[in-house]
Amino acid sequence: MPSEFSLTRQVEFHETDMAGIMHFTNFFRWMEVCETAFYRSLGLPLISFVPGQVVGWPRVNVSCAYRAPLRFNDTVEVKLFVKKLNTRSVTYVFQFRKDGALCATGEVTAVCVKPDAQGGMAAQPIPAEARAQLQEAPESAYS
Amino acid sequence: MPSEFSLTRQVEFHETDMAGIMHFTNFFRWMEVCETAFYRSLGLPLISFVPGQVVGWPRVNVSCAYRAPLRFNDTVEVKLFVKKLNTRSVTYVFQFRKDGALCATGEVTAVCVKPDAQGGMAAQPIPAEARAQLQEAPESAYS
Amino acid sequence: MPSEFSLTRQVEFHETDMAGIMHFTNFFRWMEVCETAFYRSLGLPLISFVPGQVVGWPRVNVSCAYRAPLRFNDTVEVKLFVKKLNTRSVTYVFQFRKDGALCATGEVTAVCVKPDAQGGMAAQPIPAEARAQLQEAPESAYS
Amino acid sequence: MPSEFSLTRQVEFHETDMAGIMHFTNFFRWMEVCETAFYRSLGLPLISFVPGQVVGWPRVNVSCAYRAPLRFNDTVEVKLFVKKLNTRSVTYVFQFRKDGALCATGEVTAVCVKPDAQGGMAAQPIPAEARAQLQEAPESAYS
Repeated sequence: MPSEFSLTRQVEFHETDMAGIMHFTNFFRWMEVCETAFYRSLGLPLISFVPGQVVGWPRVNVSCAYRAPLRFNDTVEVKLFVKKLNTRSVTYVFQFRKDGALCATGEVTAVCVKPDAQGGMAAQPIPAEARAQLQEAPESAYS
Repeated sequence: MPSEFSLTRQVEFHETDMAGIMHFTNFFRWMEVCETAFYRSLGLPLISFVPGQVVGWPRVNVSCAYRAPLRFNDTVEVKLFVKKLNTRSVTYVFQFRKDGALCATGEVTAVCVKPDAQGGMAAQPIPAEARAQLQEAPESAYS
Repeated sequence: MPSEFSLTRQVEFHETDMAGIMHFTNFFRWMEVCETAFYRSLGLPLISFVPGQVVGWPRVNVSCAYRAPLRFNDTVEVKLFVKKLNTRSVTYVFQFRKDGALCATGEVTAVCVKPDAQGGMAAQPIPAEARAQLQEAPESAYS
Repeated sequence: MPSEFSLTRQVEFHETDMAGIMHFTNFFRWMEVCETAFYRSLGLPLISFVPGQVVGWPRVNVSCAYRAPLRFNDTVEVKLFVKKLNTRSVTYVFQFRKDGALCATGEVTAVCVKPDAQGGMAAQPIPAEARAQLQEAPESAYS
């Protein structure tokens, strides 16, 4: 049962800003891309809009600590760890490495939701198929 | 009946790229922001998701010609002109000016759509309330 | 001496995602836009590339807690508070309110930097003109 | 000598908008990503900031025609064709295909520039190493 996942990606020109580095918000986009690829690797859709089976994952808490900038064309490994698995939410830790050196660390807590009767969203248990494949990484893996 | 609209906006840091200028794709975002504000000025929603009255405006053709770069904090006037009004589509021309000087010219053709039975989109006539308020600008206004 | 600042902004179409809400990363863009406008209100540039006076503010820690989603065209007040003023860094708290209701709270710590001899960045004291105008908000203002 | 290039990419969640489709501006980002990867495949940097060898490629004209929407997780082939090679500029055509079906066609003209004495940009001939590897695709390849 997987508790880790990684992908490698290069910084795109449009992701840079006038300071010559990747804009800090794009680290969060990459975290979400990594989470999507993790689910895909499990054979699961991250998000479903099939009526009666709608699943979304709005973020409730996110953070990122930046140590070193990323630049255009840098090749970066993004590593995801399942930190905490609750009934209705999951917390991931992400590490960004360039040539092995840690450049940033992120954390994302997302809640599993479905539409409620008022057109809003209500928390729901993580779908069983996803739940069956996820497990928490040992803290030593990412700290 | 309005055929023109303008808004003023400053280039944001996240809109710049490592060349120190506004990334070319953001001109298109500004065109859409200007179109939204134009509709708001008419007391109309650009987009509606009210069941039975769904209206969307996917773009079918867009273009932009760039003459001079925009930089962080530049104050820019974006001017919209209704170039062509068809039954189911509209074409806008946009001009970007800094200190009066033309920096870019864009053109966008959007089609008015509603959901079709297959979960896709079908062209529909421009809603009457919008139609009643729109008119084409004389070509001399923007050329 | 100001310790607070606010701006009002509407959610743009391109800032939404397929879940129908503002993408979570855009809250961070708005924080930066608010910080830029705060500096502008002080008559100061946030960033300078004038040789010998280069000032940048890379983020070292950012976080956001989301309570309620923002949707297309929502009018939102973004409020900035100077939480902590150090010699070389500043921490801001941001609150996002719609119709008075708190939708999200963010925190950003940025370090004041200048280029170093190796083409990288080195922390530097906050410029005196900025320092002279900034003060910490009382904790009661934002908690 | 290559005149074509292609890459495959999946639509990311943050690239969608509330209409449930990839926001139209992201097609232009993908064109630029494809151009970057094309240069990388030639062993060339698209952009250089090495003093004395600075090369940039600001866009002067871009356009895109949209036929069918792209959705989250869609796997898309982006194909680049060198349409026109001038001394100081190049025009590319791009095709976006999903399951073989053409979803969009783009065109980008970029000018090769270097910094001028006034801190702006001046057109310069395409660097010889790039020039030596590029050739125009026959019109039949992309029309």
